[in-house]
Amino acid sequence: MNFHILTLFPEMVEAGLNTSILKRAIEGGFITIKATDIRDYTLDKHKKVDDYPYGGGAGMLMQAQPVFDAYKALEKNMDNRKPRVLFMTPQGRRFDQKFAEELSKEEDLIFLCGHYEGIDERVIEEIVTDEVSLGDFVLTGGELASMVMIDCISRLVPGVLGSEESAVDESFSDGLLEYPQYTRPEEWMGKRVPDVLLSGNHKEIAKWRTAKALERTKEKRPDMYKDMTDKLDTFKSQNPKKFRKKRSLEEDLMKMRELTAQMSEETKENEE
Amino acid sequence: MNFHILTLFPEMVEAGLNTSILKRAIEGGFITIKATDIRDYTLDKHKKVDDYPYGGGAGMLMQAQPVFDAYKALEKNMDNRKPRVLFMTPQGRRFDQKFAEELSKEEDLIFLCGHYEGIDERVIEEIVTDEVSLGDFVLTGGELASMVMIDCISRLVPGVLGSEESAVDESFSDGLLEYPQYTRPEEWMGKRVPDVLLSGNHKEIAKWRTAKALERTKEKRPDMYKDMTDKLDTFKSQNPKKFRKKRSLEEDLMKMRELTAQMSEETKENEE
Repeated sequence: MNFHILTLFPEMVEAGLNTSILKRAIEGGFITIKATDIRDYTLDKHKKVDDYPYGGGAGMLMQAQPVFDAYKALEKNMDNRKPRVLFMTPQGRRFDQKFAEELSKEEDLIFLCGHYEGIDERVIEEIVTDEVSLGDFVLTGGELASMVMIDCISRLVPGVLGSEESAVDESFSDGLLEYPQYTRPEEWMGKRVPDVLLSGNHKEIAKWRTAKALERTKEKRPDMYKDMTDKLDTFKSQNPKKFRKKRSLEEDLMKMRELTAQMSEETKENEE
Repeated sequence: MNFHILTLFPEMVEAGLNTSILKRAIEGGFITIKATDIRDYTLDKHKKVDDYPYGGGAGMLMQAQPVFDAYKALEKNMDNRKPRVLFMTPQGRRFDQKFAEELSKEEDLIFLCGHYEGIDERVIEEIVTDEVSLGDFVLTGGELASMVMIDCISRLVPGVLGSEESAVDESFSDGLLEYPQYTRPEEWMGKRVPDVLLSGNHKEIAKWRTAKALERTKEKRPDMYKDMTDKLDTFKSQNPKKFRKKRSLEEDLMKMRELTAQMSEETKENEE
């Protein structure tokens, strides 16, 4: 998967994405990240890329021509594929994990980063396919938002995460917040690691973690909690025989996970 | 205002925040941004900062001791003020412009950036005052999210934006999306700048822009549109004499803006 960033600050983007996982992914050939300096494409002899807005108002706008030509130079190398071009704006679709999964299926993604007070509307109309919003807040430019999205999307590209890391991520897609975690030492500043985690009893550990995740989700994200319990209720009503025994909520949830895993295993076998 | 970042990747944070506006704000003495390398505070002789989670599971966790000692070293220089410590987690309060305004009033903000599979819960309990979420998606670490927040909060610190830039930002707090903007040339690839913007008629330009902003907000963010029209209706019912004349929605909105500005002007004068 190839990430292309159209920006006036290429060095900022490249430095900011130089983390362990992304670096390894680039070295392993799973992704490329390349920033294109829009300023390199201006036809203005003073290398100017911005001008005053028509109709008056504060600030400067990025001009259409350099943005468009920088985009065309990228597109030329894509064998007539029309790539998705993402532009960060408060009016865009809210970025979330589901949107990231959708974007991770693309071969190329272009991020257009606005700066100053915005970009001439005509070039946005001409090249942008997706308006995206990271949230309801104002940033100086699109660079940091693009970097956040690239980090998130990269993690979903096959090969980028090792099998260990992928396994952990799956717990998020469960629709629950994470349970608390503890590492060495057993006691720190008078606080002990919960006994169950030292017990070696894997079933009890899984139960404790599920209960803690449920507790947190209920308290801090009632919306996610409701989605999860609705899903569980539907599943139970579809598989009444499996849920005859009365169990706690965390046990029911673990049962659903187990059965879902079994079913997807069976489906795979039948397909083979 | 001083931003402190506790991280395992200090160079990533510093490079990524090196934009024109923030750089000028640092040089002007309005803000400082300083990254502290958590690894410098480990007591482990191999400089280790992570270990396996108790109870099993994939990945490594950041240990409590180096995080806590890095925090303590910062706190020592703050004359017994207890600073707010922000930790990025999906279970946190959603970051938005209102939250940013609240945080911009602080003298110091500490951002704790998690990495690997998380941080030992005990040190989170001990030092974190605010759990914050940028949105419902998974990132490699807290660095990029912190950088987004620092960019946004900085812009609200007095002096960071020039008066021109500040004026533009106010339009966002209006609760409407931005109107389309155009700059030179008048015609680009057969697309002409709307005539009204070239007319020099400031009143007509303001009306056109307000109408466009309303149109976009209605289409793309019906939630924001409803909030704005509710606010307008309330205002009209409180000031019936000013709204006897029948006007278009954009004219009503402009009237409300004008009256609100007048009232806040009068309040100021009365206070003096």
